[in-house]
Amino acid sequence: VGKVYLVGAGPGAADLLTVRAVRLLAMADIVFHDALVQPDVLDLAPQAEKIAVGKRCGAHSTSQRFINKRLADAAARHPVVVRLKGGDPMLFGRAQEEIDALAAAGVDVEVVPGVTAALAAAADLNVSLTRRGVARSVVMVTPRVGEGESPHAWARAAAAADTAVIYMGAGEADAVVAALTGHGMNADIPVVLVENACRPGSFHAAGTLADLAALSRRRGDGPAVIVVGEVGRALALAAAPAFAEPRRIAVAGR
Amino acid sequence: VGKVYLVGAGPGAADLLTVRAVRLLAMADIVFHDALVQPDVLDLAPQAEKIAVGKRCGAHSTSQRFINKRLADAAARHPVVVRLKGGDPMLFGRAQEEIDALAAAGVDVEVVPGVTAALAAAADLNVSLTRRGVARSVVMVTPRVGEGESPHAWARAAAAADTAVIYMGAGEADAVVAALTGHGMNADIPVVLVENACRPGSFHAAGTLADLAALSRRRGDGPAVIVVGEVGRALALAAAPAFAEPRRIAVAGR
Repeated sequence: VGKVYLVGAGPGAADLLTVRAVRLLAMADIVFHDALVQPDVLDLAPQAEKIAVGKRCGAHSTSQRFINKRLADAAARHPVVVRLKGGDPMLFGRAQEEIDALAAAGVDVEVVPGVTAALAAAADLNVSLTRRGVARSVVMVTPRVGEGESPHAWARAAAAADTAVIYMGAGEADAVVAALTGHGMNADIPVVLVENACRPGSFHAAGTLADLAALSRRRGDGPAVIVVGEVGRALALAAAPAFAEPRRIAVAGR
Repeated sequence: VGKVYLVGAGPGAADLLTVRAVRLLAMADIVFHDALVQPDVLDLAPQAEKIAVGKRCGAHSTSQRFINKRLADAAARHPVVVRLKGGDPMLFGRAQEEIDALAAAGVDVEVVPGVTAALAAAADLNVSLTRRGVARSVVMVTPRVGEGESPHAWARAAAAADTAVIYMGAGEADAVVAALTGHGMNADIPVVLVENACRPGSFHAAGTLADLAALSRRRGDGPAVIVVGEVGRALALAAAPAFAEPRRIAVAGR
């Protein structure tokens, strides 16, 4: 009887997986992976059968219940089953549903943590998310909520933290801005949009919250996070002259 | 002229470093490391000079200005200088002060992200920090604030998020509970204290916020985080019978 490893694939670059993740991929009999996992990461498991079960925003996706069943079935046939998730499995990855279903089926599960997108973005930008004197709290949120979940709680949490990193929100910039300003966030607060953090094609654009929709139109279709907060002020100031619609940044509020 | 790499050492286990971090350690001429970095991680750089500059809560620490200067001096003498920080460099690591000082000295800096303690704890517990229907926001905070920083902002941010992970707070449990309940958090909310996540000697204890001081007395002196929120409810319920002072967990509030 096999075991299922829920493994974080990190932000995309193959050398930002952990050593443990690489070792498990090299041992895996079968790998179930999200759509966002890059081909060179999958190449770390040349011997394994690969099955895409991911989810990409808006696109076709395999139902979670079906994924759970396939994982349990695979563990009945293979010693080492890897479930590879972009970033870290325990942040916005529906890991709990897989863990609970596997536990209910009597299958052992182990989680291997990974580098999450917020930290990859900070590394790309050379911007600490908790700069002393400026930010001592960082919230990771997503405006994508499920059935029965509050559509406003994420924005309240974002507005209360010194730094907010918004996952899966770049495609709905207008709604993000409306929700954040509706919870009292100033439209002059710095934002930095980071696409493909720590990957080839990495792109970032900085400005203020009011500029987010304009910044977002400049991105491609890679995964992106939005960093909101005073930690981004230097980047926002440096970028301001290049804006399509220039805007003065209120340094006085610092 | 050399380059300084600010590298995340992850939660402690040597195989939870990224492949990029391991490669840089193998190339490093000199490694400046925090006190919490484990010996087997330092063994990944057998050829390098190792210099401990860390900080441990309450203990003697090298002044930040002196660390900045030593990093710049080392880059003038060595091609590859690694500054190794526990967890991820961009969360509670004073990285910005080092990045800015090195930039001012004309030294190239590159950040290599790592696995942060919150995600290591979630992996150890098999508990997602963003379980669907329960939590869609995670805040990482510390009650340790510097001069001129608000002593209350962290608790406000923690109370507004669905899940809060508190860094460097286990040693001051009473103050943490007072701050969180003072910001409207219910004393019946589940908490899980995790010490040495993803390391040998990993320990966790679950209960409610009201129990935090009792839970904290059971830990050793390893690094610990506190996970606060409904995502910990199953662990808190499972642990309740074993409490020194048992307490009913309010399931109705779920």
